[in-house]
Amino acid sequence: MKQIGIGLLGFGTVGAGVVEGLRKNGALIGARLGLELRLSKIADIDLDRDRGVAVDRSLLTKDAEAAINDPAVDVVVELIGGTGVARRLIEKALALGKPVVTANKALLAEHGEEIFALAAQHNTDMYFEASVGGGIPIIRALREGLVANHIDSIYGILNGTCNYILTRMEQEHLAFGKVLKEAQKLGYAEADPGLDIDGHDTAHKAEILASLAYGFHVPLADVHVEGIRDLAEADIAYARDLGYRIKLLAVMKSLDDAIEVRVHPTLIPVNHMLASVGGVFNAIMVEGDIVGQTLYYGRGAGRQPTASAVISDLADAARNLAFHSPRRMPALVKNSHEKIREIGDIEARYYIRLSLLDKPGVLGQIASVLGQNHISIASVLQKEGRAGDYVPVVIVTHFAKERDFRTALKEMAAMHILSAKPVRFRIEDMLNQPPAGPGRAPDAEAVAS
Amino acid sequence: MKQIGIGLLGFGTVGAGVVEGLRKNGALIGARLGLELRLSKIADIDLDRDRGVAVDRSLLTKDAEAAINDPAVDVVVELIGGTGVARRLIEKALALGKPVVTANKALLAEHGEEIFALAAQHNTDMYFEASVGGGIPIIRALREGLVANHIDSIYGILNGTCNYILTRMEQEHLAFGKVLKEAQKLGYAEADPGLDIDGHDTAHKAEILASLAYGFHVPLADVHVEGIRDLAEADIAYARDLGYRIKLLAVMKSLDDAIEVRVHPTLIPVNHMLASVGGVFNAIMVEGDIVGQTLYYGRGAGRQPTASAVISDLADAARNLAFHSPRRMPALVKNSHEKIREIGDIEARYYIRLSLLDKPGVLGQIASVLGQNHISIASVLQKEGRAGDYVPVVIVTHFAKERDFRTALKEMAAMHILSAKPVRFRIEDMLNQPPAGPGRAPDAEAVAS
Repeated sequence: MKQIGIGLLGFGTVGAGVVEGLRKNGALIGARLGLELRLSKIADIDLDRDRGVAVDRSLLTKDAEAAINDPAVDVVVELIGGTGVARRLIEKALALGKPVVTANKALLAEHGEEIFALAAQHNTDMYFEASVGGGIPIIRALREGLVANHIDSIYGILNGTCNYILTRMEQEHLAFGKVLKEAQKLGYAEADPGLDIDGHDTAHKAEILASLAYGFHVPLADVHVEGIRDLAEADIAYARDLGYRIKLLAVMKSLDDAIEVRVHPTLIPVNHMLASVGGVFNAIMVEGDIVGQTLYYGRGAGRQPTASAVISDLADAARNLAFHSPRRMPALVKNSHEKIREIGDIEARYYIRLSLLDKPGVLGQIASVLGQNHISIASVLQKEGRAGDYVPVVIVTHFAKERDFRTALKEMAAMHILSAKPVRFRIEDMLNQPPAGPGRAPDAEAVAS
Repeated sequence: MKQIGIGLLGFGTVGAGVVEGLRKNGALIGARLGLELRLSKIADIDLDRDRGVAVDRSLLTKDAEAAINDPAVDVVVELIGGTGVARRLIEKALALGKPVVTANKALLAEHGEEIFALAAQHNTDMYFEASVGGGIPIIRALREGLVANHIDSIYGILNGTCNYILTRMEQEHLAFGKVLKEAQKLGYAEADPGLDIDGHDTAHKAEILASLAYGFHVPLADVHVEGIRDLAEADIAYARDLGYRIKLLAVMKSLDDAIEVRVHPTLIPVNHMLASVGGVFNAIMVEGDIVGQTLYYGRGAGRQPTASAVISDLADAARNLAFHSPRRMPALVKNSHEKIREIGDIEARYYIRLSLLDKPGVLGQIASVLGQNHISIASVLQKEGRAGDYVPVVIVTHFAKERDFRTALKEMAAMHILSAKPVRFRIEDMLNQPPAGPGRAPDAEAVAS
């Protein structure tokens, strides 16, 4: 059986998971491929730490460049992370015409354009299934399974840490800070949690998905990002009363004149499949113009799920080496105006929570401000009880333009009838999605089931 | 741009969808592939019916064999259905070394072994993404995305007609017969609905998934099948009270000494993702030993979703032709004992509804019979009210062996304390699945999200 030599750069959590996976299921994987995936080199700066998996010392090296250069290495797996050393090493491998498998979403989101160009220049490939959605084969589904489709929209829960925090906040009625602290104590969130909770990790993944879907490198700077740091338990509760659950959602849409790529806490209907995604799980709903709505769900991170995705890429890379079919899969294929809609131009429904002075006529004043800015009200929720002289009022709007909405918020602030800054979230109804019911009637031809 | 010629056999609903899809998104698909998918021939016995899509008359022919033989045809798409003509034509194409794309689950389930062998013999390929789950790229996910995994289990909602009926029964509190009649009147169920509602269509799809997962052709006769025809609204209501929803589920499991492949109405926890799958949608949960649980969801049938899957296969076939890489994807790779557990040997939890004579001691008698057969009771539900002299009692058991359970049912029947045949369903808790909550705590390494 033909052997494909693997050079593994970075022997950390995921790296050890890959070694473990190849050891556990190597014979099965080999039989499925008709090729043997063989670990030829493992490079790491620390050769002594116990990773819970035994490897032949002769495979280990501190010299990553030597590993890349090793003629026994046919494909390079970069699991170092970050945008420094990792980038340099990937570029080195590509320059030698060696395909690279990576899980490095930050690098691809920031420097994907140059890296993909380099791979093309040297007639080789980048593989990055593990960069989005952990073990979920979403890259493959998007590029191959849905190849017939123009992608109308993608909605993704892409960060397990955030989803874990939001799920616990909702189910146990806890404050954000408390859940975050506990998660950190347990090692479930980083000491510096900003990358996750401020939405940047989700934005990296959204950038990759949007680029694949729309065929051009979406500049990370054009992705609007809001995190979950300021989310109050009260809003989770009000959302629930209104039939919604709050998720950190990556939203990508193809519109007539531009695409939208944004990441923010979002109210989604509680009976939507995405609302059922709890804990550290990830899910991505992709809507194509032919296939309609599809959804992909699984563990979005962790040693084993990520290793599963890395090995699936290794299998692909091995096949393309064995069949001499580099560049088999397209690089990005442009299929939309390369224009990203500015956040001020997006249209959405909004949830607003106001602490309103308890005086006659103030709600009318608020309604006037909204009306003057072309924002109409869909529903108002005001429960009994007050906080001092102020009463919490929740307003849900019909579709409105973000720019108008921001103007309205400014005008409200100037009216001195609010005790606190208004809180607002966008709502995504994803209306084509049938709820957990019959939804739209099946097509007559659905009969042949 | 290199052209790949397509010979389409069967210009029915899905065939027209494929033509429409290629017309609508042909340029985009071509750009993504670097190859042009070109319709060279369309064969059908009816050349005059309006399919809602215009085609050049010169492409149309009644002679399917001539279409297969046409040198302009590089790949054959079989959308005739059935196990007669379709089989003969597929075999003809394979014998010429031409790859075949099909959506024909009945044919693959019944004769897949011979057909796959013929493809191998002529160094060409069968593609069948559209045969299971409509537009959901489940075949690709299972064979490629999860290539690193031994498949522990698959749970599938695979028949849109059944799921539509069950969803309406539950949401509108309607009887099976009434929903079926309405569905038939509206054209959503066949005049002869047996293939769907008796579970055979689901069994065909389960056979295909199980064969791929476990690497050997599972004989259709070894798949235990029960349909939804006898499902009473009362059981849907009792199940709901117990926290379950009833779905027609295909269950595939890898066990120590055998695999299980079965299709039957099943109680699943109401907070499980699969329970949220409503209407004509399909979903498949696949658990791998490395990746953990993953789920795939979308429209399981219909002109457009099926066309999306067919075109994704055409893209694959075209790439393999262009890169001269036939047999790139493995045929079945054996990875388990080729043994299917008999239904009597399976273990499950059971839901039983009994109409019990309203006399002291009868529930004790039932409990004794269960106990004597090694079946222990997890919970009992008896609501007030009776039907004549009989009271409905619902019992949920712990895990028990089907054979013991059947013996117990026989012994109960002989006791003359029941007014009707006991009703029983299996329960699948799919316990590894976190409910819509934090579920199992994330791994420490999940931090890197």
